[in-house]
Amino acid sequence: MKFKVSAELAYNVKAPSTLILNINALRTDRQNIIEESLVLDPHINSEELPPIHGENRFVRLDIQQPGPIAVSYHALVDNYYEVRNHSNMPEIPVAQFHPSVLTYLNPSRYCQSDKLYRLASNTFGHIHTPFEQVFAITDWIHKNVEYLSGFTNSETSAYDTVTQQAGVCRDFAHLGIALCRALTIPARYFTGYAYQLYPPDFHACFEAYLGGDWVLFDATRLTPLNGLVKIANGRDAADAAIASIFGDVEFKSIKVSSEYAGETPFEPIYYTRHVSDGVTYF
Amino acid sequence: MKFKVSAELAYNVKAPSTLILNINALRTDRQNIIEESLVLDPHINSEELPPIHGENRFVRLDIQQPGPIAVSYHALVDNYYEVRNHSNMPEIPVAQFHPSVLTYLNPSRYCQSDKLYRLASNTFGHIHTPFEQVFAITDWIHKNVEYLSGFTNSETSAYDTVTQQAGVCRDFAHLGIALCRALTIPARYFTGYAYQLYPPDFHACFEAYLGGDWVLFDATRLTPLNGLVKIANGRDAADAAIASIFGDVEFKSIKVSSEYAGETPFEPIYYTRHVSDGVTYF
Amino acid sequence: MKFKVSAELAYNVKAPSTLILNINALRTDRQNIIEESLVLDPHINSEELPPIHGENRFVRLDIQQPGPIAVSYHALVDNYYEVRNHSNMPEIPVAQFHPSVLTYLNPSRYCQSDKLYRLASNTFGHIHTPFEQVFAITDWIHKNVEYLSGFTNSETSAYDTVTQQAGVCRDFAHLGIALCRALTIPARYFTGYAYQLYPPDFHACFEAYLGGDWVLFDATRLTPLNGLVKIANGRDAADAAIASIFGDVEFKSIKVSSEYAGETPFEPIYYTRHVSDGVTYF
Amino acid sequence: MKFKVSAELAYNVKAPSTLILNINALRTDRQNIIEESLVLDPHINSEELPPIHGENRFVRLDIQQPGPIAVSYHALVDNYYEVRNHSNMPEIPVAQFHPSVLTYLNPSRYCQSDKLYRLASNTFGHIHTPFEQVFAITDWIHKNVEYLSGFTNSETSAYDTVTQQAGVCRDFAHLGIALCRALTIPARYFTGYAYQLYPPDFHACFEAYLGGDWVLFDATRLTPLNGLVKIANGRDAADAAIASIFGDVEFKSIKVSSEYAGETPFEPIYYTRHVSDGVTYF
Repeated sequence: MKFKVSAELAYNVKAPSTLILNINALRTDRQNIIEESLVLDPHINSEELPPIHGENRFVRLDIQQPGPIAVSYHALVDNYYEVRNHSNMPEIPVAQFHPSVLTYLNPSRYCQSDKLYRLASNTFGHIHTPFEQVFAITDWIHKNVEYLSGFTNSETSAYDTVTQQAGVCRDFAHLGIALCRALTIPARYFTGYAYQLYPPDFHACFEAYLGGDWVLFDATRLTPLNGLVKIANGRDAADAAIASIFGDVEFKSIKVSSEYAGETPFEPIYYTRHVSDGVTYF
Repeated sequence: MKFKVSAELAYNVKAPSTLILNINALRTDRQNIIEESLVLDPHINSEELPPIHGENRFVRLDIQQPGPIAVSYHALVDNYYEVRNHSNMPEIPVAQFHPSVLTYLNPSRYCQSDKLYRLASNTFGHIHTPFEQVFAITDWIHKNVEYLSGFTNSETSAYDTVTQQAGVCRDFAHLGIALCRALTIPARYFTGYAYQLYPPDFHACFEAYLGGDWVLFDATRLTPLNGLVKIANGRDAADAAIASIFGDVEFKSIKVSSEYAGETPFEPIYYTRHVSDGVTYF
Repeated sequence: MKFKVSAELAYNVKAPSTLILNINALRTDRQNIIEESLVLDPHINSEELPPIHGENRFVRLDIQQPGPIAVSYHALVDNYYEVRNHSNMPEIPVAQFHPSVLTYLNPSRYCQSDKLYRLASNTFGHIHTPFEQVFAITDWIHKNVEYLSGFTNSETSAYDTVTQQAGVCRDFAHLGIALCRALTIPARYFTGYAYQLYPPDFHACFEAYLGGDWVLFDATRLTPLNGLVKIANGRDAADAAIASIFGDVEFKSIKVSSEYAGETPFEPIYYTRHVSDGVTYF
Repeated sequence: MKFKVSAELAYNVKAPSTLILNINALRTDRQNIIEESLVLDPHINSEELPPIHGENRFVRLDIQQPGPIAVSYHALVDNYYEVRNHSNMPEIPVAQFHPSVLTYLNPSRYCQSDKLYRLASNTFGHIHTPFEQVFAITDWIHKNVEYLSGFTNSETSAYDTVTQQAGVCRDFAHLGIALCRALTIPARYFTGYAYQLYPPDFHACFEAYLGGDWVLFDATRLTPLNGLVKIANGRDAADAAIASIFGDVEFKSIKVSSEYAGETPFEPIYYTRHVSDGVTYF
């Protein structure tokens, strides 16, 4: 699946500052960067940080000169996904979880799974398989949480959203992650470019560790699951901020786009009830 | 500095379960494990997980047989520390932070630094150097937070402690970490064995990234800074639980000890006001 | 319905203090105090405060002499209740609510109804009548919240309980009240003596304003609805503390009892699904 | 002190609704309403509710007809205040508090004094008299909390503001009230018209019960203490909402004014440090 993605960010720097961007498409076994450019105007020293945990590609800008800055990222990305039927997939016990996934069982800043054990168990504990549990979680979120811009902010967490029942993609993802972890299903945050998302923006959803794979889920259902280009994973949004600002930098504007660049027509995949297919490509 | 450390843990397993222990002393450049044994009674299959981020040595037990289990860990550890004067140490800007420390600027489950910016800035912003800021933070915590067992629990976070002003070593550490991060000083959680801690127990404190080193701070002032043997680092206690239980396992008892095994008399180091020495050995 | 109720409280006063007790049975049109005694040992000046809002009978003790104090309250109370069928009762709009009930629509310390609008609406908004909504709320609480001593404390509020799903009678009442108010149904806290409650203790439940009456609901289902003797109403537990201590007073022990003193056999009433009878006697 | 006050509110009613307004100046021994008019356009049935606890004058509108509604309140009010020196005023113990003030010691929705005991005691406990404690509280709030529109919302409480340190007059008042109560000083919310407040709006501050009087405090210091016309008291903003909407009513605009209508020049009073004068006129 080829996608042309781009992000145009504009800032006004008021004093020497450091900016850490997290907008580059991730390189993985299943996501290949065919072409890529990151242009800074005016030119600024930038440094792509070595991937710490393989989860992101931070670019650090050391900005000495105040004034406006324009960031322009363009990439042509080729990724592929698999659809696997999870209906008869054997359940993997914690004793056999890959060590790298254990951290995704822990509560994190926006995913206080430790406070949701009873709720998760009362609501989803009776469901037979982990795949169906995660499916039911996303259904429950989709049904109960209203997609509403401006209701939540950068401090909002799953503990709030489970009760206040409104938010944006980030909040939907955090709640999904927290409920999975409360059921001992490793789950991690996903940010990326999304095809057919209106209005265009970065998107957030989550992956759950099922049958030894990371399977993609999106409780917002706003975008096809096979239209995503991954930027980063993390325990939650704290690990995957699009931009981290250290200093006095004013955000001005953002423009994000994603175009399908494949040769055959795009056939969107959305999960539907009663089908045990999971999408994995990350 | 040689220390003999030990931990005796007893559990009652009621159904097949997985237990992940995090009680082994860490191997680092400055902490050498001379001898070590981990005995499980009855014998259980155990697996030391490969260190994921160099921060811990998890041991995973796959317990099939219900019944009592005794865990006995003994080690002879040799570590060394440096005391460095930070009064004229050049300040390192974010633009030059080692990439591996950036994650320790993020808010985490128990350290909601994103909610403490104004408070940290109002209270500590006027202080000149990061070292003195962290020093003032530990002073402030020591003065305002009462060490009180049973007041807090495993859900208590820095956001609670900053107002409720009571807790145990874990809470003191979380608050110190959160305030550091709110001032753009990377900070991480530390758990270990502690010499001269009464009553004996595992201990928690924190490290701040200052002048390119991780410098140790302990707002509880309950134990000498040079009497510690490190078990793990992490973003907060969520990363460094002594034991993570998956299944039906009842905790029965714990006994922890640390003895000085050096040849020259032990000379305890505690921070004192107006001295800009920082202890680094990790 | 005659009940003999008693409360024996013991304190150790360490310095001159004020104690405000709220253990006397309330006098209402439907609750008559036949006999009553409040004995303090040693004798202390006490003052029954004039009822401020008709909701309680505070007794204030001005204790000058340190030492142990025993409080002994005994009363013979006669109250009566009505069981009314609410299935065809006309709904009263806010425009016709008695002015005195409006305060019970406001959020309060432990009942943050303002944070539960969406959850209440999503969960109970489709139900036709207010009576059936309150009924469904108590059902939902009974089903989802585990009665568990020691899990919550005096700071726990409905916002916690709705997610954490465990608590005691006070927590069940707070959650019921908060959900009612979120649906624009006035609701108030109730404390009292409870017949057939095991172990014997003061009890808390709540009243909802339905069809112009205050109707009793108890999501714990631990005690018959016609076995209660009212001590106080209030917006939540903050208004109806059994004892408020100002000074240095140590709580030592409590013993509460309630005996049926009627002439005909006691026939317990519990709400059952699919019956639209509401119990009102206050 | 004569003031001409007015409030112009506009709503768009989308479906039959009830609106409860709380904008009428309160009648008290020290606040006399010389002239007053409340005009509704179009005309709507309105009812002034009998004062429940003497704290407010609610006006209830039963709106059957959808469409725009304009509310116009005008009053000429004469009130007077006293300035009393509190430096040698005897302290009143809880045992002698007037029964009507005890409720203002309880925690409430936005003033969780029960969570602030240690902080209040650690920060203000060493100060000698209650008057000076309240003075120090307002100083502390003024110094540490930034007046910032849009940072907080209707769910923000003192527990948030004590840490997040930004907000509007309502948040300043809530924090002042919560800290007073945590020190066993009764405190209540105050809303009113404010002379010389820019931009003009309703104002909120608080009263503390000191020496047997309710003494006015305003941590915002945005308006002179003798320029206020009281609308309502309450435990916190939950009791004193300017307008409570039940139904589908859209708020459109608000315009508030207060003019001095006295014959002698207005001489503003603000508290200054080191003066023990308290302003009481309510």
